[in-house]
Amino acid sequence: MTYDDPIAALATPFGRSALAVVRCSGEGCLRLLAPAFSRPAALLEAESHTVLYGRLLDRTTATVVDELTAVVFREPRSYTGEDTVELVCHGSPVTIEAVLSLLRRLGFRAAEPGEFTLRAFLAGKLDLTQAEAVAELIDARTQRGRALALHRLSGSVAERINAVKARLVDITAAVEIHLDYPEEDSGEVEAPIDAVEAAMVDLQRLAATYATGRQLRDGAPVAIAGRTNAGKSSLFNLLLREDRSIVSEVHGTTRDYIEQGIEIHGVPISLYDTAGLRDTEEQIESEGIRRSEAIIEGAAAVLYLIDGADPQPEDERGRELGRVRELCPGAVIPIWNKIDLTQREAPRGFIALSSATGEGLQELKAVLREAVLPDGGSEDGAAVIESDRQRALIERAVAALGAVLEGLQQAMPLDLVAVDLQDALSALGEITGEVASAEILDAMFSKFCVGK
Amino acid sequence: MTYDDPIAALATPFGRSALAVVRCSGEGCLRLLAPAFSRPAALLEAESHTVLYGRLLDRTTATVVDELTAVVFREPRSYTGEDTVELVCHGSPVTIEAVLSLLRRLGFRAAEPGEFTLRAFLAGKLDLTQAEAVAELIDARTQRGRALALHRLSGSVAERINAVKARLVDITAAVEIHLDYPEEDSGEVEAPIDAVEAAMVDLQRLAATYATGRQLRDGAPVAIAGRTNAGKSSLFNLLLREDRSIVSEVHGTTRDYIEQGIEIHGVPISLYDTAGLRDTEEQIESEGIRRSEAIIEGAAAVLYLIDGADPQPEDERGRELGRVRELCPGAVIPIWNKIDLTQREAPRGFIALSSATGEGLQELKAVLREAVLPDGGSEDGAAVIESDRQRALIERAVAALGAVLEGLQQAMPLDLVAVDLQDALSALGEITGEVASAEILDAMFSKFCVGK
Repeated sequence: MTYDDPIAALATPFGRSALAVVRCSGEGCLRLLAPAFSRPAALLEAESHTVLYGRLLDRTTATVVDELTAVVFREPRSYTGEDTVELVCHGSPVTIEAVLSLLRRLGFRAAEPGEFTLRAFLAGKLDLTQAEAVAELIDARTQRGRALALHRLSGSVAERINAVKARLVDITAAVEIHLDYPEEDSGEVEAPIDAVEAAMVDLQRLAATYATGRQLRDGAPVAIAGRTNAGKSSLFNLLLREDRSIVSEVHGTTRDYIEQGIEIHGVPISLYDTAGLRDTEEQIESEGIRRSEAIIEGAAAVLYLIDGADPQPEDERGRELGRVRELCPGAVIPIWNKIDLTQREAPRGFIALSSATGEGLQELKAVLREAVLPDGGSEDGAAVIESDRQRALIERAVAALGAVLEGLQQAMPLDLVAVDLQDALSALGEITGEVASAEILDAMFSKFCVGK
Repeated sequence: MTYDDPIAALATPFGRSALAVVRCSGEGCLRLLAPAFSRPAALLEAESHTVLYGRLLDRTTATVVDELTAVVFREPRSYTGEDTVELVCHGSPVTIEAVLSLLRRLGFRAAEPGEFTLRAFLAGKLDLTQAEAVAELIDARTQRGRALALHRLSGSVAERINAVKARLVDITAAVEIHLDYPEEDSGEVEAPIDAVEAAMVDLQRLAATYATGRQLRDGAPVAIAGRTNAGKSSLFNLLLREDRSIVSEVHGTTRDYIEQGIEIHGVPISLYDTAGLRDTEEQIESEGIRRSEAIIEGAAAVLYLIDGADPQPEDERGRELGRVRELCPGAVIPIWNKIDLTQREAPRGFIALSSATGEGLQELKAVLREAVLPDGGSEDGAAVIESDRQRALIERAVAALGAVLEGLQQAMPLDLVAVDLQDALSALGEITGEVASAEILDAMFSKFCVGK
């Protein structure tokens, strides 16, 4: 598998801004660009990691496309390992179009999504867990998610996987000695059992971090519910004002006006304001209530508001809260709101809150954070995975090691045990990309953004 | 006026992408950055126009903010003329936030809109017409608009203005000789009259390019009108399919679903599909018709469609067309649609069109382009202005030269003529920024995007 034809793509978002970066890479990159650059000789002779100011010219129409800087990276000291030029042009949509159109005419192919990173992988600059970390970093929704992706980018997952692999290679060697010298005492295969168990535990621990990774990746849906006038919208706005997620603004979600992204102590949350829930005995089923119920059914947590200044009778309150608990598979957090307007004590198990003054908000956020990410993330410094692909392969390796363990314990023929060991090793090899088919790579890199 | 404190801003659009560029500039820029860079000594010693790969570190939390490249430009060889570093980091919103937050803590102030270009102006790297051209380039809506802005960026407007100024300086000198030696023959001030007229004509010609510049900047509203079933939506979709403006997609306008940006032969057009217009005698005034009429009243051109396969009686058609001509201050282009379905000849003055097959579309586009930009743009190579500021100042200079001319022709006291000459010179000086107050600069640069 070799790809080295010259490719180009916009590497920054398409829109109006001061600057835009168009990335070019591949065989003959500098040679193709030079005739269109106002300083062709300087470009051809440029050393790696240097910057040239000049004009990009369309020779066919004898016009200037843009004044720009060309950042030159020479093979192998570039991201892709190939000769690469980053053209830093004016951040104008029509300029970007003109530059890309010129590059196509010069012989650059439009890069596929993730193609620069794919080339980096093929050049041995990154393993597959690092390549995935690049996409995960760009998609990170919180600072915690960013830090974990950056940690993976530095190779922390590959390191864990390779450590386990090294142990499995030792075990395989031990097993193969028995296969080669079957006359020896079979008691000696005892030692690998502990080693296999240790490897399994290590992989299981890594697989378990996926829950945290996924929560940080996907966020948790949280609904604010309660009767009309319980202060739902005030709480919604209070949380938005304090913790609105910058990433939700990028989404520009218009799907549902009552949903907004917030970030609480590093956990991304999709916050839903629901219509007032009525006592179901009233038998009034409006579209709004059906929608509220659907949101509650899908929520990881519900903030259930009671108007503390005008509370319902206790039995009615209990019935409504019970109904919400019935609907919601996640945590239901009862809140005694409007404490600024009343002397009444919050009942046991309720959080006392004033969405007008913000009193009680910090406690609410701590409880909510705990409810949506119970394990508190992972210990610092340890790798946390969020890739479905990596988890599936780790689980395949764990299952294979389970079979190895059973085979050893039940003194099954060692050649069968060796097959399971090989399966575990090959699953781990797929994780880092030592073993990688074109299909695997296609599936993985097609999820990337163009220009990366 | 000196600004040289260290500033930083995101220079690419905020969003998910492969790369983002954060620009840092000002006094002590490298010294402030170095402690947060994984290779502080290399950064401090970096030559201009070189690139360093490294990690950006938050020393207070001992964490890595990102792996990135730092592009170093040394004073005075940078855009601003100051030491500048462009940090090319991962294009992740949370990474961008983390980088900007770290830079603030390191002592960089968030740059004001246009502050990098303002500094470039103050350092003498650009005159004001070039600085305005930077913003105009970024905002360009068509390739023609881009090319004209780039031409201004190269200094073409300043060149024209400075040529006129040089002549006015000569005239002023001639006038001042007369003032200093009033005993000489007054006949000698004759010569400057031609020179003043020539300067006026030159400025008027430049001012006249503003109409073209504005049309390219703002685009022209064009309405498609006609009876229900005349084929309005088909024509709307046909034009969109062929000529949809890439820039309108950036806008993401949702203001009115029947409006879309297209670009016809380099002219940006806002195309409106209107509801069917009924014969006004029917006296049925619906909201839709009122809205259609309002669109027609504001249109630079109306494409008025007649169903050629099922035409109305001629007098009725004439009455309706008359009504549209009454409403629209611009051009009304009558179109005989559905020629694929009929043998009937289009009446005189109608464009024969099939919005089903596209026949007649090229003729329609040529007529429309002529209708919305009658002067056909400007001759190639000449400066075209689009700045309101520049036009107002040119007009002030023209008015002052008019007074000069009158003074010379009526043999008014030469010291009064000299005052008007000075006024013309000072208006021209403001255009290029030789004369510039803090208010003028504030007003101008505040319209820029941040990071430029």
